[in-house]
Amino acid sequence: MDLLSIKDPSFLKEMNIDQLKELSSDIRHFLIENLSKTGGHIGPNLGVVELTIALHKCFDSPKDKFIWDVGHQSYVHKILTGRADQFSTLRQYQGLSGFPKMCESEHDVWETGHSSTSLSAAMGMAIARDLKGEKSFIVPIIGDGALTGGMALEALNHIGHEKKDLLVVLNDNEMSIAPNVGALHNILGRLRTANKYQWAKDELENLLKKIPAVGGKLAATAERLKDSMKYFLVSGMFFEELGFTYLGPVDGHNYEALFEQLQYAKKTKGPILLHVITKKGKGYKPAENDTIGTWHGTGQYKIETGDLIKPVNAPPAWSKLVSDTVLKLAKKDERIVAITPAMPVGSKLEKFAEEFPNRMYDVGIAEQHAATVAAGLATQDMKPFLAIYSTFLQRAYDQVVHDICRQNLNVFIGIDRAGLVGADGETHQGVFDIAFLRHIPNMVLMMPKDENEGQHMVNTAIKYNDGPIAMRFPRGNGYGVPMDEALRTIPIGTWETLREGKDAAILTFGTTIPMALEAANLLQKQGLSIKVINARFIKPLDEKMLKELLETNMPILTIEEAVLQGGFGSAVLEFAHSQKFTNVIDCMGIPDKFIEHGSVNELLREIGLTKEEVVKEFKPFHLKYKKGHDI
Amino acid sequence: MDLLSIKDPSFLKEMNIDQLKELSSDIRHFLIENLSKTGGHIGPNLGVVELTIALHKCFDSPKDKFIWDVGHQSYVHKILTGRADQFSTLRQYQGLSGFPKMCESEHDVWETGHSSTSLSAAMGMAIARDLKGEKSFIVPIIGDGALTGGMALEALNHIGHEKKDLLVVLNDNEMSIAPNVGALHNILGRLRTANKYQWAKDELENLLKKIPAVGGKLAATAERLKDSMKYFLVSGMFFEELGFTYLGPVDGHNYEALFEQLQYAKKTKGPILLHVITKKGKGYKPAENDTIGTWHGTGQYKIETGDLIKPVNAPPAWSKLVSDTVLKLAKKDERIVAITPAMPVGSKLEKFAEEFPNRMYDVGIAEQHAATVAAGLATQDMKPFLAIYSTFLQRAYDQVVHDICRQNLNVFIGIDRAGLVGADGETHQGVFDIAFLRHIPNMVLMMPKDENEGQHMVNTAIKYNDGPIAMRFPRGNGYGVPMDEALRTIPIGTWETLREGKDAAILTFGTTIPMALEAANLLQKQGLSIKVINARFIKPLDEKMLKELLETNMPILTIEEAVLQGGFGSAVLEFAHSQKFTNVIDCMGIPDKFIEHGSVNELLREIGLTKEEVVKEFKPFHLKYKKGHDI
Repeated sequence: MDLLSIKDPSFLKEMNIDQLKELSSDIRHFLIENLSKTGGHIGPNLGVVELTIALHKCFDSPKDKFIWDVGHQSYVHKILTGRADQFSTLRQYQGLSGFPKMCESEHDVWETGHSSTSLSAAMGMAIARDLKGEKSFIVPIIGDGALTGGMALEALNHIGHEKKDLLVVLNDNEMSIAPNVGALHNILGRLRTANKYQWAKDELENLLKKIPAVGGKLAATAERLKDSMKYFLVSGMFFEELGFTYLGPVDGHNYEALFEQLQYAKKTKGPILLHVITKKGKGYKPAENDTIGTWHGTGQYKIETGDLIKPVNAPPAWSKLVSDTVLKLAKKDERIVAITPAMPVGSKLEKFAEEFPNRMYDVGIAEQHAATVAAGLATQDMKPFLAIYSTFLQRAYDQVVHDICRQNLNVFIGIDRAGLVGADGETHQGVFDIAFLRHIPNMVLMMPKDENEGQHMVNTAIKYNDGPIAMRFPRGNGYGVPMDEALRTIPIGTWETLREGKDAAILTFGTTIPMALEAANLLQKQGLSIKVINARFIKPLDEKMLKELLETNMPILTIEEAVLQGGFGSAVLEFAHSQKFTNVIDCMGIPDKFIEHGSVNELLREIGLTKEEVVKEFKPFHLKYKKGHDI
Repeated sequence: MDLLSIKDPSFLKEMNIDQLKELSSDIRHFLIENLSKTGGHIGPNLGVVELTIALHKCFDSPKDKFIWDVGHQSYVHKILTGRADQFSTLRQYQGLSGFPKMCESEHDVWETGHSSTSLSAAMGMAIARDLKGEKSFIVPIIGDGALTGGMALEALNHIGHEKKDLLVVLNDNEMSIAPNVGALHNILGRLRTANKYQWAKDELENLLKKIPAVGGKLAATAERLKDSMKYFLVSGMFFEELGFTYLGPVDGHNYEALFEQLQYAKKTKGPILLHVITKKGKGYKPAENDTIGTWHGTGQYKIETGDLIKPVNAPPAWSKLVSDTVLKLAKKDERIVAITPAMPVGSKLEKFAEEFPNRMYDVGIAEQHAATVAAGLATQDMKPFLAIYSTFLQRAYDQVVHDICRQNLNVFIGIDRAGLVGADGETHQGVFDIAFLRHIPNMVLMMPKDENEGQHMVNTAIKYNDGPIAMRFPRGNGYGVPMDEALRTIPIGTWETLREGKDAAILTFGTTIPMALEAANLLQKQGLSIKVINARFIKPLDEKMLKELLETNMPILTIEEAVLQGGFGSAVLEFAHSQKFTNVIDCMGIPDKFIEHGSVNELLREIGLTKEEVVKEFKPFHLKYKKGHDI
């Protein structure tokens, strides 16, 4: 059918299974075709085509509420709710979001990006529904990976206790971003194979009848025996113990089976967990055959071959630079242990895992646990390297405060994807880390200007023995600068002057350095001589250099690709005023709003972090400087 | 025996059970006697006397590592490791901490305060032990309440998968701070009563032998049947499914039983969960009979009667003021729902729960879930009131960013225990909330000057419909000011002038206002006329008033009982510089270090947040003002 003509999912009600199968096929072609041009989360969406169609056929959205955990598997839902025509703009500036967005559709009742929030949100909605006396089905759809996130487990515990009507759809594809880990994963594995025993159910019941004397001498054990049999007959005792009715496992690509279970679920009271087995990448061989997570989310690709279209001769990715350097050091330092919360691929730790399988721990989607495992290691004089994305480190804020920094432990946090991340949008921008780390006592926070300084900083972090130290680095690739052979350490809290100047100074670090240097060159042509400093330590500041600078009375501009409130600029202001300086200091950075998806350059333009804006910034500066200080 | 003579726990090795029982009795008397004078966590410690002694007898600390989850139950451990003589200084300034502290003893290998960290820490230590090829037992001791915290569940999932040798002692007293909630609690309840079925074990096995034809036609179900029987025979299948060997339940006050299980655990490989049943407050009737958590932690009390010694006619506690006002509003507004993560007593929500049992949710120790349940409620046009302590809100930072603020939902966060909290010390100081909330877009953050303004602010928060709003308020009692009968709303982002002045201005809010006013009076005598502003909105600032103030060129002093980095003072600096002002602005607040335990007044003196320091602060101010601006 013509997917572009879909306005809402009501048309599904009339469709028979053959028609639905055709629709599934159309949607798969649409996704494979469109995403080959835009990139996106192809694997997860191909896996939920039938499941999404079945949910929209059996339920009545938006009255019934679908809550897509993580949310990158909501493309089919977007197609069925009238957004197929926007897929050419997927994840692009001012285009269709790659995640559910309330402003896009009334069918998006909850926005996501981070994992494991859906069950808690669903519980809130269920409480509201019942208090208002409304009737509706609330259906969170959560992956087996997201289920191990602490807040999802907290929610299972609470939901199972409260007994509200709630249908949790467990979308089990044995892989979230990387292959899943953890005991729960093993439990699900046992459940997946349990159905082969189901044939024996009737025979077992017959068998039980033959047991002599039940109910006589054994009366006291009757209840427990019942439980035990239930455990035999009902596979999902783990979830049953938590207070859920377990249904499944059901083949998530079989409409008949899905409808049967969903209809049964609709008639069942209390919290239900429907275990659905899906195949990530279903219907597209390159994605189906993916075992390490390459096809979880991709850029552009060639449909026929499944070859990813990558820039030719791109400089190495930052993640790789960092993990390779850690690996290099780990060969000499046995104390180094790498920890990742479910991001072995994204953090490029595969090689580390291969060389040191006993010194690399993927703990699953469990940022809090990851941070405190690192702290525990550090108490035993090990050197933990916690590889984590800026946006996901938010989940471990308390662990960084309470466990790592308060105990002043030697944990090296590699903060990946710091700054604007682009297409993933507002849930993934790594723009808060400076503001949420800088105020924690004992924390050292730095960012390198290029990948050569980056490798020295990694070395600095590993050699540092006075407490926690974090290095933030951006998404994407380095510049391809020459790399020193031998690793150095950089003295903690030291900046470097990149460009001399006498009229004003720019303090900046990381990704905004090239822009600052270009602006300085432009300003040179206007007769202004601008000093540019690589303020690579965000905490502690280079107080000596900063004080000398403040004493010159030069106006100062700070630039950061991070939120302004509480950021690096504020640190400079705080220091200046604590030293009784009243210099002209201006701060450029990310304003006080959430930044949506788009290319990083488009976003930087939107918020005014460009060389042109820097040049403009110096206009009043220049005037004020002349008026206020020179005369 | 003379507890003061204990240097380390080695003496226990020689003691027989009768001697141990006498020791338990001595320790109980010591605790009841000492804590009646100092206050402290009496209930939890009386509950673990035998357990702690048994652990120290069976293991070899500090080679073997005890990790006390939360840590307030470590008093017996402190006595056995040579700290009995310091108990008169418990929780007092520069005295013995109420929590494990590495600097106090080599037997304290992990510091705590927040719950649910012990399993992750233990996992880190176990990885380190195995990598180093060392032999030792790692023994986290965690309560049933703390077990429902998300990070503990993340850890269970990981530990059960990795199969490291680790002995988790589950100290199940059916109550953490309040009676525990959640499905896990129900599971533990079933386990506690399961032992009555154990007698049937042998008979059941005999029975099974009588089943005909097992192994024949039913061969395919054999494995599952085994599992099923295991479920029957081994009570703790929930934990067994997670990969643990479940032992227990064992009476935690019975030495014979404890030794038997601990010795068995020492010989068992892999992760073990030993389920120990204890009675909170054991051996002291008033604490034993406590059903709501009064004796979890107390101030001074009369030993004979168990009467708590409270200040006579104290003004109402802040928690009560806030919850009473919310309750008052809830009677008229059906949309209000209260949520607490395990703090119904601390947050004084008992009355709310009584009046509106369907509109009050204690979700257990699960701050992340609590915050997102509130967000879920808000999507359905309800008015959630999230009652949470400042220090525990740290656990929900990402949920506040990602779920509440990003979706701009109408959640009212009541931030209790904001500022210094005193005796609980560095893990509990509520001093980071301004720095970790202020940079989040859409957040409104306020703090009242007294309880009358407090009630109007609660009303303001409930009436506010433009997104999240948080009110921080201190631990302890109000001032006893007259209360208005009718509730008002306070315009968002407005400050008020409390005292006029022309020489300089103090901007402050909440608890530091009286001190600022006193300092202004002292300075008046020195001829300085100081304006004092109640900066009750920390975000957004009263930009109009602040701009007018900056235009006067008066020097400004900001004062806050919160960390300086990224705090309110920084907000003032950011605004001033964004508007191109270069006024003299000084900031007083909490310096960049963790603040230990002591009375709030002692701590304020230590960090220089006193009226005397404010007066001193104006000395250079005054000079600079005269020199830099007047001339």
